[in-house]
Amino acid sequence: MSEKKMVEEITSMDVDFAKWYTDIVKKAELIEYTSVKGCMVIRPYAYAIWENIQRILDGRFKATGHENVCMPMFIPESLLQKEKDHVEGFAPEVAWVTHGGSEKLEDRLCVRPTSETLFCEHYSNIVHSYRDLPKLYNQWVSVVRWEKTTRPFLRSREFLWQEGHTIHATAQEAIDETERMLNVYADFCENDLAMPVIKGKKTESDKFAGAVSTYAIEALMHDGKALQAGPSHYFGDGFARAFDIQFTDKENKKQYPHQTSWGVTTRLIGAIIMTHGDDNGLVLPPAVAPIQAVIIPIAQHKPGVVDKANELRDRLAAAVRVKVDDSDNSAGWKFAQYEMKGVPLRIEIGPRDIENNQCVIVTRHDNQKTTVSLDNLEQAVTAKLQEVRDGIYEKALKNREKHTYRCRSIDEINQRLADNGDGFVYAMWCGDEACEDSVKEQTGVGSRCIPMEQENLDDKCVCCGKPAKHMVCWGKAY
Amino acid sequence: MSEKKMVEEITSMDVDFAKWYTDIVKKAELIEYTSVKGCMVIRPYAYAIWENIQRILDGRFKATGHENVCMPMFIPESLLQKEKDHVEGFAPEVAWVTHGGSEKLEDRLCVRPTSETLFCEHYSNIVHSYRDLPKLYNQWVSVVRWEKTTRPFLRSREFLWQEGHTIHATAQEAIDETERMLNVYADFCENDLAMPVIKGKKTESDKFAGAVSTYAIEALMHDGKALQAGPSHYFGDGFARAFDIQFTDKENKKQYPHQTSWGVTTRLIGAIIMTHGDDNGLVLPPAVAPIQAVIIPIAQHKPGVVDKANELRDRLAAAVRVKVDDSDNSAGWKFAQYEMKGVPLRIEIGPRDIENNQCVIVTRHDNQKTTVSLDNLEQAVTAKLQEVRDGIYEKALKNREKHTYRCRSIDEINQRLADNGDGFVYAMWCGDEACEDSVKEQTGVGSRCIPMEQENLDDKCVCCGKPAKHMVCWGKAY
Repeated sequence: MSEKKMVEEITSMDVDFAKWYTDIVKKAELIEYTSVKGCMVIRPYAYAIWENIQRILDGRFKATGHENVCMPMFIPESLLQKEKDHVEGFAPEVAWVTHGGSEKLEDRLCVRPTSETLFCEHYSNIVHSYRDLPKLYNQWVSVVRWEKTTRPFLRSREFLWQEGHTIHATAQEAIDETERMLNVYADFCENDLAMPVIKGKKTESDKFAGAVSTYAIEALMHDGKALQAGPSHYFGDGFARAFDIQFTDKENKKQYPHQTSWGVTTRLIGAIIMTHGDDNGLVLPPAVAPIQAVIIPIAQHKPGVVDKANELRDRLAAAVRVKVDDSDNSAGWKFAQYEMKGVPLRIEIGPRDIENNQCVIVTRHDNQKTTVSLDNLEQAVTAKLQEVRDGIYEKALKNREKHTYRCRSIDEINQRLADNGDGFVYAMWCGDEACEDSVKEQTGVGSRCIPMEQENLDDKCVCCGKPAKHMVCWGKAY
Repeated sequence: MSEKKMVEEITSMDVDFAKWYTDIVKKAELIEYTSVKGCMVIRPYAYAIWENIQRILDGRFKATGHENVCMPMFIPESLLQKEKDHVEGFAPEVAWVTHGGSEKLEDRLCVRPTSETLFCEHYSNIVHSYRDLPKLYNQWVSVVRWEKTTRPFLRSREFLWQEGHTIHATAQEAIDETERMLNVYADFCENDLAMPVIKGKKTESDKFAGAVSTYAIEALMHDGKALQAGPSHYFGDGFARAFDIQFTDKENKKQYPHQTSWGVTTRLIGAIIMTHGDDNGLVLPPAVAPIQAVIIPIAQHKPGVVDKANELRDRLAAAVRVKVDDSDNSAGWKFAQYEMKGVPLRIEIGPRDIENNQCVIVTRHDNQKTTVSLDNLEQAVTAKLQEVRDGIYEKALKNREKHTYRCRSIDEINQRLADNGDGFVYAMWCGDEACEDSVKEQTGVGSRCIPMEQENLDDKCVCCGKPAKHMVCWGKAY
């Protein structure tokens, strides 16, 4: 009964993708709603995924020389207003603190939507000489943006993220940093999250408020929509000028330093769900799965079965995140539960397996069963986890390839989207914002990015027919 | 010049303890002020201390069965008001969000000063049956309390903390949890922070808003004032009743569950400074020191010296957090700098040391030099770190013993405080709040806690002479 109930309550992704998504976030116990719209409880299972993301990324940030700091959560209105483009971009969607206790504040405070202004104020206090540069900072905090429409992980009023903020003596150093961190994100998404991404540059109309240029990685979700993860911004010296940050160079001259910022958010959890999930629930990439293998004793009332399961767990614990479920629930119920939770490997061990010195490993993403000898269980499990990562990566890549359309006319774009569903459209662009808008208006797909890896599909802009400057990746965005 | 400057700028702790403290937080690059009063930048060195505290405590929380979650930072005013005592305690000091973007909110939101109300709302959604209990949750976040007087780490408007929140089927389980976590805190402070603490129960007048009972650990700072760390609260079923959280027990009857909460904050960094620091700067307990040993090459321009220093670092890196400073600064400047930063061990290696296959280890807290053979450097360094922990613990314990006064009358309290300076006063109490207030009025020391380890100093209350119920630890508090 329970097994049936658990599965029945999930909408099929082909029937209603949005409903399927919210079913999973609830049924896999990832989030719970609260009485504050757009603010959610991140439950232990989802938080454990986030902790794994943090641990891996934090290690990469530190390996590339970054240090963690912590800025206040409040920004005075007067400070937010110092950089013109920045405040225009963010002021409409911030939460304002107007009272402390029973007293009205003179300068109201916004809850940080992002912390460039705070870092700039700090830099102006601590950066004086070329010896003080670079500063390579990062912080793991939550930020608030007062969004009208909200969805768990994808668009919430408060979300967790890391924001890297760096300041350099030269423009080139800052540009290199922007690219370095984009590559760190891309590598993490591809290898650890098994999510293929396209690295690219945002068009002028789509860049971050206050940036000279914004880079980002774009992934294609199972429904053919694009999800942006990991933007990396190059600021030039615009913020430094607005905040009067100057340093004395080796020739004793005053100079403005150059800055970057970059961040990923709990949105990545939404990306994992929509890239790898299926109608049985979550499918988690092994690198971030809170439980990488669950051991289910079969006929666990028989003598020795639970003991054997525990023995296998103890053997595996040094290499993988593993647990035994010897609860009273039926084996079938457990199978359904751990499928819903996306645990990459299920290890079944019963009396007959014990007799034969073997166990059965079932991979979540393709439901393949393999009988393996207990003699080399550790190697088998480690190899299976790699197989899962490779398998779900290939599956996601195939889905992206199937839904990537190289087009040479507006008609072709509309035809391909109509025939094959949403996806990435590759088409040439003259660089004119009017054409960018026009493509979106005529086809429904907007510019996602100008991919680093350019292809010469045509000499002409897909919209106006004038000489093309870039190949753009177009799509519908989350 | 730099060496002199670095030391000169610190006020001696005996001259002005408060000034000495703020000098250290700035000179050791722990914090930087911001334009928001009471909100500070936690700089990389202080944040690295906090990361070590987090890592160790998080491990202990997980080892005792707790899971991390993340609640929203906002609490609707209507939710905060559900538990009467709780709202009375916190409403006067919260920051209020009244606007989201340009729109006024219907129900204004406070930035969490603590999250009992949010956890209760969540429990009411997810706890239905005895099978759902216990829930052992924790979160690492920041909270806001709109304090009038602020000091870095000790009292700031925003601070980082962890807050544990648990819910249990029975009162006894919740009481056990309260004590368990108090013991985790005490053990962590004593062993990892090398800070002797007194475990005790708060008096009725001093307990947390909404709690049945509050336990805490109290440490004595170098100036004789007390600092509370690690409160642990038992709530009974008061919050459950206020928030209508009920579960069905095994006999199918509705019951109210019992709750606890407990937390430590970045205040611990203030406690470390004021327990172990001296006139040369910070003295860090090895367990949380970002750098446990710094290697200073002596006469580093001579061939082979820096290479040898790097070789030692590579050997030590597996066992300790170690760095080499081969910058252009003079050795003397480096000595002063790492003393200021409280690095437990300084390892000096010069041409003559290399010749003799040795190095010199200097312990920060007592400036003792030991020449050790390079053959067993790893063991020597590990042993030295333990020696430092034990040494600073003993030093702090001696200071506390020297400033602990067992008194049988108000006059004796005043006399001891006048003769020997601030400290802990142990004296008997009848349990009457009027006497508690009167002791404070007559002596300046308030009740810190009722220590778990009771002594029978007298049969009579130190204030009114009526039969004594408890021995109380009194003191001036941070």
